[in-house]
Amino acid sequence: MVNPFFENNGPYKISEILNELNLEVSEIDKDFNVTNVRDLQNSNSGEITFFHSKKYKIAANKTKASFCLTSENLKNELPKQCIPIIVQNVLASTSVITTKFYPDSINDNFDETVEEINNTKFIDKVKFGKNVLIGKNVSIGENCMIGHNSIIEKNVIIGDNCFIGSNTIIRNTLIKNNVRILDNCVIGKHGFGFFPKHNKNLRYPHIGFVLIDDGCEIGCGSTVDRGSMSNTTIGKNTYLDNQVHIAHNVRIGDNSIIAGQVGIAGSSIIGNNVKIGGQAGISGHLKIGDNVEIAGGSGVIKDVPHNSKVMGYPAKNIREFLRVNR
Amino acid sequence: MVNPFFENNGPYKISEILNELNLEVSEIDKDFNVTNVRDLQNSNSGEITFFHSKKYKIAANKTKASFCLTSENLKNELPKQCIPIIVQNVLASTSVITTKFYPDSINDNFDETVEEINNTKFIDKVKFGKNVLIGKNVSIGENCMIGHNSIIEKNVIIGDNCFIGSNTIIRNTLIKNNVRILDNCVIGKHGFGFFPKHNKNLRYPHIGFVLIDDGCEIGCGSTVDRGSMSNTTIGKNTYLDNQVHIAHNVRIGDNSIIAGQVGIAGSSIIGNNVKIGGQAGISGHLKIGDNVEIAGGSGVIKDVPHNSKVMGYPAKNIREFLRVNR
Amino acid sequence: MVNPFFENNGPYKISEILNELNLEVSEIDKDFNVTNVRDLQNSNSGEITFFHSKKYKIAANKTKASFCLTSENLKNELPKQCIPIIVQNVLASTSVITTKFYPDSINDNFDETVEEINNTKFIDKVKFGKNVLIGKNVSIGENCMIGHNSIIEKNVIIGDNCFIGSNTIIRNTLIKNNVRILDNCVIGKHGFGFFPKHNKNLRYPHIGFVLIDDGCEIGCGSTVDRGSMSNTTIGKNTYLDNQVHIAHNVRIGDNSIIAGQVGIAGSSIIGNNVKIGGQAGISGHLKIGDNVEIAGGSGVIKDVPHNSKVMGYPAKNIREFLRVNR
Repeated sequence: MVNPFFENNGPYKISEILNELNLEVSEIDKDFNVTNVRDLQNSNSGEITFFHSKKYKIAANKTKASFCLTSENLKNELPKQCIPIIVQNVLASTSVITTKFYPDSINDNFDETVEEINNTKFIDKVKFGKNVLIGKNVSIGENCMIGHNSIIEKNVIIGDNCFIGSNTIIRNTLIKNNVRILDNCVIGKHGFGFFPKHNKNLRYPHIGFVLIDDGCEIGCGSTVDRGSMSNTTIGKNTYLDNQVHIAHNVRIGDNSIIAGQVGIAGSSIIGNNVKIGGQAGISGHLKIGDNVEIAGGSGVIKDVPHNSKVMGYPAKNIREFLRVNR
Repeated sequence: MVNPFFENNGPYKISEILNELNLEVSEIDKDFNVTNVRDLQNSNSGEITFFHSKKYKIAANKTKASFCLTSENLKNELPKQCIPIIVQNVLASTSVITTKFYPDSINDNFDETVEEINNTKFIDKVKFGKNVLIGKNVSIGENCMIGHNSIIEKNVIIGDNCFIGSNTIIRNTLIKNNVRILDNCVIGKHGFGFFPKHNKNLRYPHIGFVLIDDGCEIGCGSTVDRGSMSNTTIGKNTYLDNQVHIAHNVRIGDNSIIAGQVGIAGSSIIGNNVKIGGQAGISGHLKIGDNVEIAGGSGVIKDVPHNSKVMGYPAKNIREFLRVNR
Repeated sequence: MVNPFFENNGPYKISEILNELNLEVSEIDKDFNVTNVRDLQNSNSGEITFFHSKKYKIAANKTKASFCLTSENLKNELPKQCIPIIVQNVLASTSVITTKFYPDSINDNFDETVEEINNTKFIDKVKFGKNVLIGKNVSIGENCMIGHNSIIEKNVIIGDNCFIGSNTIIRNTLIKNNVRILDNCVIGKHGFGFFPKHNKNLRYPHIGFVLIDDGCEIGCGSTVDRGSMSNTTIGKNTYLDNQVHIAHNVRIGDNSIIAGQVGIAGSSIIGNNVKIGGQAGISGHLKIGDNVEIAGGSGVIKDVPHNSKVMGYPAKNIREFLRVNR
């Protein structure tokens, strides 16, 4: 799929890519055209990927990419057609290359293409409030409403029967049908991802988007950041309360309920039918199974298996927690 | 009192109400006009109420309602004049009936009646910023200020000497005198109340409003949700800091102090002179007494008696907590 | 330095100041002109200061102020040239006097001086979105961008290469170069400081400002309150994620990383190279050393020495915490 939000400035010859990283690699056809950069699972022949941790070994074994930024001790996990490119810091090098392909993904400047909705083709199609701004190439389905002062930035796709509240900003987001996003939200900004560097952090490009599936509701004052390489997704009929923060690359399943002021850190995966109480926090890169209940105020710092109820900080089995903490 | 924010589409004959629930009840005058739906305490003769938990037994004993949605095992608590209507899920049935009486309470569409304040009768009465929007039938007292880009939706009532900041949205709210609501707040949206249903949650109607009493201050980025059947109230001279979330049906007393990022879940009752430290969370349906102090970061999961100081998660007596946790 | 944000209505004769406090002090030249009120460290000859706690004994010993509001048991710590003025409640009296010098600092009314940026000198200098409002006497450097619906209030100073997002409000703030403040933030409102008084709290004036140093980023929906007597400062290349709350008088060092939904209470000092995980809270008046790591969800209630890692509530050594809490 073509990335609907960030233009791919490639292809680049592999020699240009190696130059960017100050690398020389022998035995490579320097004129090979590299068409894209993607993660291990999604990359295809002709593309470059990256592999930085043993955790992703299975995906590495099966990648279809032609090149892979990786380290000496991981390179042997790659299949034969995938040529390893050994770098010191895999993620920092991936960041540099991704920025080369998608230069617009590194900043989040406001959308200069927006127009007052009165001056757009949506004037008769959408029910809208005062001062609504719509960017270039936005798509909006049937029977939608957009409240006062809201901003729908360029390329955003909104399905049918959706409601966007007032003072809300949406960018780099694909919204399906029957979705309600309430007031004062910011959906689709880049994640809080960067390489800390003395005096000038190196920002990680975010070329993923936010995908909000059918029937979701997102409460007032919430923020949902877009993904870095993959997408941030919220599953069908999942409801978020006010002041929730969903970080980049998080994937939430269907029919889940997330109460006020919850925060979910980057790249965690939340199952279906999950209930998360108010102010609970979930660390990054965790897997929360289906039908899990997380008590309000809990701090989850490890994976939670299907069908379990947890509470506390660090969160543990709720009965065990309450026995000790009555 | 007539609900100032949601129009009552009733009365309905009791037979229509029973139809809506697919019920047949013998020995009822089918032409009886039911005028309203309200909670046990506030309902009057001619109205329908609901009773779903033993916790409300005392109120049930005294209700003046003519009909009550309830369950087989609770029905005997009702007084003689109140005819029980037995349903499988009391709250879901109440939701259906409330939506019938108050169809506008189920959605929170943006207010289409708003006008630029320049075009309203408030042009000479209120001091206002740029792009202020005022809905139909709004009432504003003497000596008030409303900041830039703020939206006061239809029927909102604001007293004297009030200050509304910029980028703030107020709906379904009654504000008394000398109140300050700062920037980027959303006051009066529906609560996070619904019946989880696979693939399509059933939203609970919220026909209550938000009542903010004399001299309150509400900090930037805060959200206060309106009540479902009763109101969300904030007592006199109570101050809320930034990014506080007050859920539906919460009642906060007078002279209380609530620090930044605190969250109070639905239907909890907070006393007078209560101090709540930053990021503390209070679960739903609790009673926090007068003069209570809750340490910052605490998670309160049971009632707290008057004059106590609590800390921890779950919050307990502060001395006990600190003895163990130094 | 002249306060760039609040006009000093002084000087006042010391007799006028004493009158305001209902005091009579013998052996004082009643016509002495008091030029300003400042904290112990920063006040100069001709000014009045305040000293309310032994914690500030060292600063009191060295103050250059001519007068000091203090208590009987602290007065002997002051140097000879500084005349003690004994009051019952030092901070409340300081509040009264500060309000006398800086009457505008007690309220946070919206800025009535703002103009559409199209009507200002910035029309050709700044890249800006729709509905941007700029107050009187604002200064903006080269190569800056300001997003839609944002409000830069009077006297704000912004350096070069800065980016302000959409729906953001900035007041009483000095921003250096290469700073990015994202959407829906409120920067520079007064802190949550007041003296609780039955039926009418006494608000503490906030005459400090917010100083955001080179290269910072502040995430969406964040709030940074200005200082009361001193400033709230964020050091170079420090990044804040979404929905962070920084209270008044907080000082954060350089190169620090503060994740989503963190809250830092008033007057705490955070060192350089500090990492704070999501939803962590830091109580007021603490010192967090350099290179400290605070785990997400922690509640810090005492000072943390340099180079330590802490976790839990109350936060303690992370190894100790995890040994007990696995």
